[in-house]
Amino acid sequence: MAATTTLHVDLDERSYPIYIGQGLISKSDLFKQHINGNKVLIVTDDNVAPLYLNNLATTLAGFECQSITLPAGEAHKNLDAVSTIYDELIRNRFDRNCTVVALGGGVIGDITGFAAASYQRGVSFIQVPTTLLSQVDSSVGGKTGVNHPLGKNMIGAFHQPVCVVADMNTLDSLPPRELKAGLAEVIKYGLIDDREFFNWLEQNITDLLALDKTALSTAVKKSCQRKAEIVAADELEAGQRALLNLGHTFGHAIETALGYGNWLHGEAIAAGMCLAARFSADHGYCDEKAVSETQAIFAKAGLPTEPPADMTAERCLELMSHDKKVRDNNLTLVLMRGIGEAFLCNDFDHKKLIKTLNTAFN
Amino acid sequence: MAATTTLHVDLDERSYPIYIGQGLISKSDLFKQHINGNKVLIVTDDNVAPLYLNNLATTLAGFECQSITLPAGEAHKNLDAVSTIYDELIRNRFDRNCTVVALGGGVIGDITGFAAASYQRGVSFIQVPTTLLSQVDSSVGGKTGVNHPLGKNMIGAFHQPVCVVADMNTLDSLPPRELKAGLAEVIKYGLIDDREFFNWLEQNITDLLALDKTALSTAVKKSCQRKAEIVAADELEAGQRALLNLGHTFGHAIETALGYGNWLHGEAIAAGMCLAARFSADHGYCDEKAVSETQAIFAKAGLPTEPPADMTAERCLELMSHDKKVRDNNLTLVLMRGIGEAFLCNDFDHKKLIKTLNTAFN
Repeated sequence: MAATTTLHVDLDERSYPIYIGQGLISKSDLFKQHINGNKVLIVTDDNVAPLYLNNLATTLAGFECQSITLPAGEAHKNLDAVSTIYDELIRNRFDRNCTVVALGGGVIGDITGFAAASYQRGVSFIQVPTTLLSQVDSSVGGKTGVNHPLGKNMIGAFHQPVCVVADMNTLDSLPPRELKAGLAEVIKYGLIDDREFFNWLEQNITDLLALDKTALSTAVKKSCQRKAEIVAADELEAGQRALLNLGHTFGHAIETALGYGNWLHGEAIAAGMCLAARFSADHGYCDEKAVSETQAIFAKAGLPTEPPADMTAERCLELMSHDKKVRDNNLTLVLMRGIGEAFLCNDFDHKKLIKTLNTAFN
Repeated sequence: MAATTTLHVDLDERSYPIYIGQGLISKSDLFKQHINGNKVLIVTDDNVAPLYLNNLATTLAGFECQSITLPAGEAHKNLDAVSTIYDELIRNRFDRNCTVVALGGGVIGDITGFAAASYQRGVSFIQVPTTLLSQVDSSVGGKTGVNHPLGKNMIGAFHQPVCVVADMNTLDSLPPRELKAGLAEVIKYGLIDDREFFNWLEQNITDLLALDKTALSTAVKKSCQRKAEIVAADELEAGQRALLNLGHTFGHAIETALGYGNWLHGEAIAAGMCLAARFSADHGYCDEKAVSETQAIFAKAGLPTEPPADMTAERCLELMSHDKKVRDNNLTLVLMRGIGEAFLCNDFDHKKLIKTLNTAFN
């Protein structure tokens, strides 16, 4: 069995490890060192429970271990789900020393993290992300939360996990479309500020799609490392964290236009990053080669490189101006000076943006 | 008009002022310096709204100011109330730069503080406590939260306010019974570790009961100062914060035995502190004079010095052992070596405790 890689994330006075490897869900020693007290609640969903719940429950059999299975999907990422977790914790008389484990993708991690953040003003939280997207995105940053009927992620808290256990073997059960969508976020880290990682991805994308565990471990580790550095830098340089939104302003407009769930988040931001590259070249910030390289890697990963056919430039522009990152009508975009050279830009020419969108959408 | 006193609370990397004085609700300059952005939501309840909401809304008229009035009372301190606040914030498109103001007693402060802690992962929070208890208790410590049907304060977060505005004039409208109950917590700070403050209280209790604003300002400032020091000390000395529970283990047993709301919290802990003093003397930790002084000051404040007549020693002991501060069946009590000399004790003689309770209750 391949070795376990450990990445230490150092944020907000607290350091925690991300373990990356194969078969980690079965390694009770890994979990034991991060669990105080005797009480553990595993929270999972009805997609993941049949696959890994028994395995993890067996691993944690030394503890007084309960589990709760929520309905899967973004539609259930709400306060009711959080309440269900509170009920279970209280019914089982879990005190402040308990540990809550999220077993699943980003939705389960977000819901469970917020329950852990707010139960008795904060209890220990372990993340066991089972999708590529949650392994590279939710593992770092401490964001937890749920949706409100009137807005996504409106309710939440910052709450760092005591550890993250990213078991590459769980990716075997991931639908191929979701694996590709996760790769969109991985590629994003190369595009933002790591040309070398981008080159590595170009060479290894086929292995990643073929679920080569060594390649996946490298991709997850590198992505978490890049995100941790960018998030940590934000404490000094206000705004750097916004680089993580590369492709997201365009991508959110696409997601909203299609209705959430028609395109996966990773698919929308892949098309969004291609738009960001296209506009960067049109504006003269980068050359055409950067655009073709960007499009080529997403195409190789089986991701969209063009916005959806039935969406107009007008609709895209309208939705972009509604984006919550817009302050005082001042639209900031993440653009590129080249591969690995993303930057924040709010003094671009709006007419040029309209021209790029008209060409891209019609 | 008397001068405004400012107390700076320095906790958790953040310092914030507590303003103590008369007519502060009308001072827009005081509020303005702590409000970023343009959007303010005042949260209050239907007891306090008719008294002070218009006044505060006028003070904040320079902002885009909304208000929401919740039903008063501990019975409404739940997730539904928090959801109502989220709804109002989102309906009015409040972003991360908004400020939420709690106008009311401890219940409104706890609910509103948790909504502020969890809306968009944390927004600014100003407390305007209108009861003596909330002025001396909730102003320091950053505890926010709501009840779950199966337990009090089970859901919550630590969230420090950007400032606290304690307007002594709001105490004019406080029912006398609640004023006295608030004094129980004030006296507690003298009993814990400040003999000089205790002496001052002995001399000024009549003025405090007569709503003398200068005396009240001094009492509120001193109490907040004592609490801030004890809470801050806890970061070095684990457990010191538990001194704040003087009288609370006995007091919670009384509250639970009678059903919450029959005795006010302050009334129950007054009787509880007298029991703690009684047991301390019975055990030989302090002399009889400390007991009589303790009883005398609570009597002078119009508070109970004896447990309720219809409660038995057995019931008290049973409820004390259910207290959430009990870990591994190890009951820790806050006892006294004298006035201003409280200490944590978990090696007392249980037989002596039973004897003290048998005498006190029967």
